[in-house]
Amino acid sequence: MLDQRRLPLHVEYLELTSWLDVAAGIRDMAVRGAPAIGIAAAYGLVLAAEQGADFDQAVKGLSESRPTAVNLFIAINRMVKLGTTDPARLLAEARAIEAEEVEMNEAIGLAGAELIPANARVLTVCNTGALATAGIGTALGIIRVAHRQGKVAYVYSCETRPRQQGLRLTAWELMQDGIPFQSIADGMAGALMAQGKVDFVVAGADRIARNGDTANKIGTYSLAVLAHHHGVPFAIAAPSSTFDADLADGSGIPIEEREASEITHIEGVQVAPSECPVWNPGFDVTPGTLISAIVTEKGVHRPLYSF
Amino acid sequence: MLDQRRLPLHVEYLELTSWLDVAAGIRDMAVRGAPAIGIAAAYGLVLAAEQGADFDQAVKGLSESRPTAVNLFIAINRMVKLGTTDPARLLAEARAIEAEEVEMNEAIGLAGAELIPANARVLTVCNTGALATAGIGTALGIIRVAHRQGKVAYVYSCETRPRQQGLRLTAWELMQDGIPFQSIADGMAGALMAQGKVDFVVAGADRIARNGDTANKIGTYSLAVLAHHHGVPFAIAAPSSTFDADLADGSGIPIEEREASEITHIEGVQVAPSECPVWNPGFDVTPGTLISAIVTEKGVHRPLYSF
Repeated sequence: MLDQRRLPLHVEYLELTSWLDVAAGIRDMAVRGAPAIGIAAAYGLVLAAEQGADFDQAVKGLSESRPTAVNLFIAINRMVKLGTTDPARLLAEARAIEAEEVEMNEAIGLAGAELIPANARVLTVCNTGALATAGIGTALGIIRVAHRQGKVAYVYSCETRPRQQGLRLTAWELMQDGIPFQSIADGMAGALMAQGKVDFVVAGADRIARNGDTANKIGTYSLAVLAHHHGVPFAIAAPSSTFDADLADGSGIPIEEREASEITHIEGVQVAPSECPVWNPGFDVTPGTLISAIVTEKGVHRPLYSF
Repeated sequence: MLDQRRLPLHVEYLELTSWLDVAAGIRDMAVRGAPAIGIAAAYGLVLAAEQGADFDQAVKGLSESRPTAVNLFIAINRMVKLGTTDPARLLAEARAIEAEEVEMNEAIGLAGAELIPANARVLTVCNTGALATAGIGTALGIIRVAHRQGKVAYVYSCETRPRQQGLRLTAWELMQDGIPFQSIADGMAGALMAQGKVDFVVAGADRIARNGDTANKIGTYSLAVLAHHHGVPFAIAAPSSTFDADLADGSGIPIEEREASEITHIEGVQVAPSECPVWNPGFDVTPGTLISAIVTEKGVHRPLYSF
């Protein structure tokens, strides 16, 4: 597993030798991004089966490694539904999940790129690219396809504190692809929009309720409100597996509160006073009413949503 | 000069032995906060006079140390208007500027605390406290007085990337005063408001135009838009010297663009890919129409502003 916590300065791979290692990798965010988490969990179950571990315990442990990502549960359920602990059959299924993910990203990218105007300045948040998925990404996949089509003049990438996935990972991917961009601190998005420098905002999703309410990385909701205030379209990009048919609206989405050290320390360096109290929710919920479009591999969905 | 870049982990003082040292301290943000910058510049001119340095050159050099803070120019002009380079007279004037600043903070705090409802959860940004001024602070001074009056249930302090003055300095001051609070990342403010956890927002100002348009630390504008969206009062606190009578509106306020390394490095540790392009404006401008009240030592001003 590529250890994304070490990027962008170090490209290092973790050797995960058991499902417990995979669960730890998910929990500690060596891998992050809802689709990538699901794929990792599927391969974790393959490891459990190969090693003759207690399969039910592996299912439970991997399911509990991150509470918000619905892809995690879908991937695990799909593996469980095979009704086997035959490693070869589980491996084939995990590989199928991964391959479908790559195709889905392409489909999302193509559908979403239709929404991007010519010479667009596009703002995004967190990392929704190759590192978060198994393909070109979701929100970043749309940017990639639109860039291929010559429509992207510029990208603005929000840092995404506390874990800085935008500054560390999205910037890294954009540089690798040669897409022109600037990284900004999260508090700069409003000023950028006020200067008329943002034509389109696109973000990923960790869970989407039937009415379009969308849980995504903390900070997404603020961007949606700012986009609304400035009349800038705000889109969500995600595989349709991100929809949770059991949720009528976003109020039922559990939001994990994460460790204080994510805010108080950066790269192990303390930046806050010792014992500084913090609030550190991992996600926020953007109401469907603030989302101009939700793009999945099935196409573009418009409000009012009714999935 | 207390080196605020070393806080909150280290309390270290710089020994500044010339006006050039003072200008460097201002430029490199060892001292920050518009009122504190003005006072520092005044003492810098005392040093210049004591050492028989070229006084006009010192005036020019100190004036150019930060482009946005109007207090800087006012303090320097006040020193220049004495029409003398007698060190004793300049020192008396610098001390008078400092003493008036302490009094002004108290007056701002008392006036602004009137706006704070009972059991208020108050959100603030950057550092506007004792470290930014010579007294209890401006926005943080209001919080202090309201806390003394038993009206502050809780404070939320935005980190304020890139330089993290909220997480480093405001958190430090709040802990020293025993005011209950949590630090949050800047992208969390919207989610906090959506949960109904913010009753009042108060921020400082670096320059205020005649129509109330206010330049302040980058991120302030986003908070104003978010507060507006959620029906939360948004106040600005600043000494009346922050008003710039020459500016009809905020469009004429110069916004300094600061070094990329403020975003790409934290405490000297690189967190972005090498050569990552960034946008790093030091300030943004909040339109007066989004500001519920502007509090100065003269009292509470309400829109539509006409200073």
